[in-house]
Amino acid sequence: MNDQTAKRNFDLGIDKQTVMTLGSHCSLQVLKGAKDEGLNTLLVCEEKRFDMYKRFKFIDNIVSIKNFKEIINKNFQDELIEKYSPILIPHGTLISTLNMDELESIRIPIFGNKWILRWESDRMLKQQLMDESKLPSPTQIPSKNEIDGLCIVKLHGAAGGKGYFLVTDKKGFEEQAQKLIKSRVIGSEENLFIQKYANGVPVYLQYFYSPITNELELLGIDRRYETDIDAIGRIPSKFQISSNIEPSYTVVGNIPIVLRESLLPEVYSMGERFVESSKRLVPPGMPGPFCIEGVYDNNANFIAFEFSARIVAGTNLYVSGSPYSDLLFETPMSMGRRISLEIKRAIESSKMGLITT
Amino acid sequence: MNDQTAKRNFDLGIDKQTVMTLGSHCSLQVLKGAKDEGLNTLLVCEEKRFDMYKRFKFIDNIVSIKNFKEIINKNFQDELIEKYSPILIPHGTLISTLNMDELESIRIPIFGNKWILRWESDRMLKQQLMDESKLPSPTQIPSKNEIDGLCIVKLHGAAGGKGYFLVTDKKGFEEQAQKLIKSRVIGSEENLFIQKYANGVPVYLQYFYSPITNELELLGIDRRYETDIDAIGRIPSKFQISSNIEPSYTVVGNIPIVLRESLLPEVYSMGERFVESSKRLVPPGMPGPFCIEGVYDNNANFIAFEFSARIVAGTNLYVSGSPYSDLLFETPMSMGRRISLEIKRAIESSKMGLITT
Amino acid sequence: MNDQTAKRNFDLGIDKQTVMTLGSHCSLQVLKGAKDEGLNTLLVCEEKRFDMYKRFKFIDNIVSIKNFKEIINKNFQDELIEKYSPILIPHGTLISTLNMDELESIRIPIFGNKWILRWESDRMLKQQLMDESKLPSPTQIPSKNEIDGLCIVKLHGAAGGKGYFLVTDKKGFEEQAQKLIKSRVIGSEENLFIQKYANGVPVYLQYFYSPITNELELLGIDRRYETDIDAIGRIPSKFQISSNIEPSYTVVGNIPIVLRESLLPEVYSMGERFVESSKRLVPPGMPGPFCIEGVYDNNANFIAFEFSARIVAGTNLYVSGSPYSDLLFETPMSMGRRISLEIKRAIESSKMGLITT
Repeated sequence: MNDQTAKRNFDLGIDKQTVMTLGSHCSLQVLKGAKDEGLNTLLVCEEKRFDMYKRFKFIDNIVSIKNFKEIINKNFQDELIEKYSPILIPHGTLISTLNMDELESIRIPIFGNKWILRWESDRMLKQQLMDESKLPSPTQIPSKNEIDGLCIVKLHGAAGGKGYFLVTDKKGFEEQAQKLIKSRVIGSEENLFIQKYANGVPVYLQYFYSPITNELELLGIDRRYETDIDAIGRIPSKFQISSNIEPSYTVVGNIPIVLRESLLPEVYSMGERFVESSKRLVPPGMPGPFCIEGVYDNNANFIAFEFSARIVAGTNLYVSGSPYSDLLFETPMSMGRRISLEIKRAIESSKMGLITT
Repeated sequence: MNDQTAKRNFDLGIDKQTVMTLGSHCSLQVLKGAKDEGLNTLLVCEEKRFDMYKRFKFIDNIVSIKNFKEIINKNFQDELIEKYSPILIPHGTLISTLNMDELESIRIPIFGNKWILRWESDRMLKQQLMDESKLPSPTQIPSKNEIDGLCIVKLHGAAGGKGYFLVTDKKGFEEQAQKLIKSRVIGSEENLFIQKYANGVPVYLQYFYSPITNELELLGIDRRYETDIDAIGRIPSKFQISSNIEPSYTVVGNIPIVLRESLLPEVYSMGERFVESSKRLVPPGMPGPFCIEGVYDNNANFIAFEFSARIVAGTNLYVSGSPYSDLLFETPMSMGRRISLEIKRAIESSKMGLITT
Repeated sequence: MNDQTAKRNFDLGIDKQTVMTLGSHCSLQVLKGAKDEGLNTLLVCEEKRFDMYKRFKFIDNIVSIKNFKEIINKNFQDELIEKYSPILIPHGTLISTLNMDELESIRIPIFGNKWILRWESDRMLKQQLMDESKLPSPTQIPSKNEIDGLCIVKLHGAAGGKGYFLVTDKKGFEEQAQKLIKSRVIGSEENLFIQKYANGVPVYLQYFYSPITNELELLGIDRRYETDIDAIGRIPSKFQISSNIEPSYTVVGNIPIVLRESLLPEVYSMGERFVESSKRLVPPGMPGPFCIEGVYDNNANFIAFEFSARIVAGTNLYVSGSPYSDLLFETPMSMGRRISLEIKRAIESSKMGLITT
């Protein structure tokens, strides 16, 4: 533990709660939001990124480590607890760094429901929770022999769309699978699963559920910006065909969007169904931020691919609020700030048990 | 009339004007803007959406009805007038719900020029007003026999791009038309009209014209997000061809954009020509919000497809102002808020006759 | 010089610095930002655009001329200096209007390093500075005989992507080159250069470097909106092929984006390498705004096409701040406003020499 605490003139009282997160994904927004709510901020970052994070004045303390994996070290956790008594805000990097046993073993209080993160990571549990929430999802194709029409093939547990590919028949499936096996991305075809390609425009719905007020809030909407699938449309068809482009689905950023207002009632309903089914299947449910991710097909029906049971990176668009948060709050309310607002409300009403696990 | 007036602690004086709209399209933005300007707000919504709208604290009163069609009931209108003396802000849902005779018969004062909404709805009148405004528009193809090169076929009066299709020859036209006839979307080929496909990037120009100050304001720019036409570029050409994708043009949302500053003089000029020709052809003209919708072709020339003679849903992007409104106003100015600002100015200067019909 | 000074009630003291720019590109944002920082504003615009610019209250003085070329007139410059003592903010229109000898001869103090603008305009110098900054760039193809796979052909000194075309073989190159020669866009094939097509999603990185604090700031990110290359994806492949679409790359606007936070350390590193190599190759270096422009390929590696050594038009998205400037400043900080903030800081610390040439 190399504690490079930034030397800044903050004289926050001992009574201020410290918000902690890992230095990646959405940490700037989360800690900026915490600071805007008057809380202390603590970043645990990898040494190589220290120079970048020290630029930001709203980060009170930076602890740099060699590798995020060190977060599972119990002594390290105890040191952080003793010195800062932090609440840890989980995000995509925490989930992709640790396996679920490791994550669940963390002693630092985690904002939200850490048990539901397993349901996000495991494809079968994920589908179960989506089905329980009555979220329409793409048709699963049980075997390569049943590929008929355009399908997308995904890797179990793949992060950020890397390795996904399109096929229209068994032969194409086998060719692409062989490539992934040869390049050691997967061990066998068993690591792949096949879905009917759900054509439509991508939409990511950013929610926050407060167990204190029992209210669901839609705080923003975005679409991902993926390379190179979002670039191939800029290549005329004749060149696409002669160049034999094989697209990838690597997320590099996000683009802001708003939806037709007539779609919002169902957006809220989907979010509420997800909150309710989470309470049933994974107590205490879904306190805090989550995201439902899918496409609107050509009948304007939503088809859900995934959910994220924690803050998503698309919320980074809305550091100073979104068209949706601006309808709900008088101050600019990022998702990161909303988390800290919830922490403050929980402290004030002695309900920390409702929002941490 | 089932008056589920929200119980909230608003003690606004009787002198406050009430702004009313139907619960859809851009109603949240319109009523938020009204509240920000200190006016009373009234939403008439369909029962099934009551639960969603009651989430929003800036809505002082919600009257829920079974179906928007009930708005044409004279007794219902009289009740609303007696209780609230509202001004009705028309938007896309009002226009698609009512025919023009019904809309023109409404006794509640309508913000803007209700007579021009007929010119938006009728394809011949619409083209006449666009021509009078010298807005370049796509070449009309008078008959399927004259299809030569890529053309788009549209339905008379179709909302939101539903049913549009592309063709390059007469045979393609007849095939697609037959499909629409069989599925009873249209009665005959007579319901279709053909335009040369104007290739270019879509741009929607959001204007506000004040008859009080006689000034035109550009308040925002967006592009629509349409399914599945904005998704097919994510399908590589070889798969598009083998899958035989038939695109649709259903609007589900909007994406913010800004334009090159060198294009703005013509953008203002187009808006002013539209305002002037509206005054000549449809007195009192075009008070309030309107939108000119088209594409920039590869010479950066604008080709207009449509106009909307009232607030458009793309303004929902700018609940807290746009890069363009921020050049004109010191406070965050959505189109919805701009409407209420105009109402206040009209009240203060006894010029309500200029902004309502 | 036709001084149509707007008659407005500004009683700014003689001690206020005047910020001047040409009426195009990003002038609205630049002068709005100057006014927000409390400085005087001066716009030199072409007569035909006077009517548009006079709409904006933050422009204290408008001097209209027939043609931007008149800015090279020494007497005109002296008049402006005597009357306003302005600092000139250079942007894309200044660069495309003047040749570099003309630009360097301007007597009005220019914000930033005017000598580096030659390195932006000259393709060989530009590549040298990019190489020195270790910015990965597309493979150069030295001759049409070596075209193998998808390549993009560009014009020396072409502005805004006009005239660019795609090829996959020598024959295609010669056909397209002949077209450009016949239409007199170029004199010979010598005016063209060939790059391997770098496939990936476009990203424009907007930086500001302060020589006063020696700090680099990432203030925003966008992607360009280009016609008709960003429209062809909306044409299904079968129609693209039968219609023989030839795309163009004319910039008409910009779309806001954010990047994955894990990409930001390298984004900052690229910017710092550019600042450092500029100091070595083109003293005094790169004070003020600049932009690095490229794509993220399917491994999420950045490939740089270009840089702009001055403010870019994509910053017009962020008139009231961006998700990145909001992390650094408590007030809404456009790039234009950031420039004026730097001017104020330079005045206060008597360091004007650091920020003007």
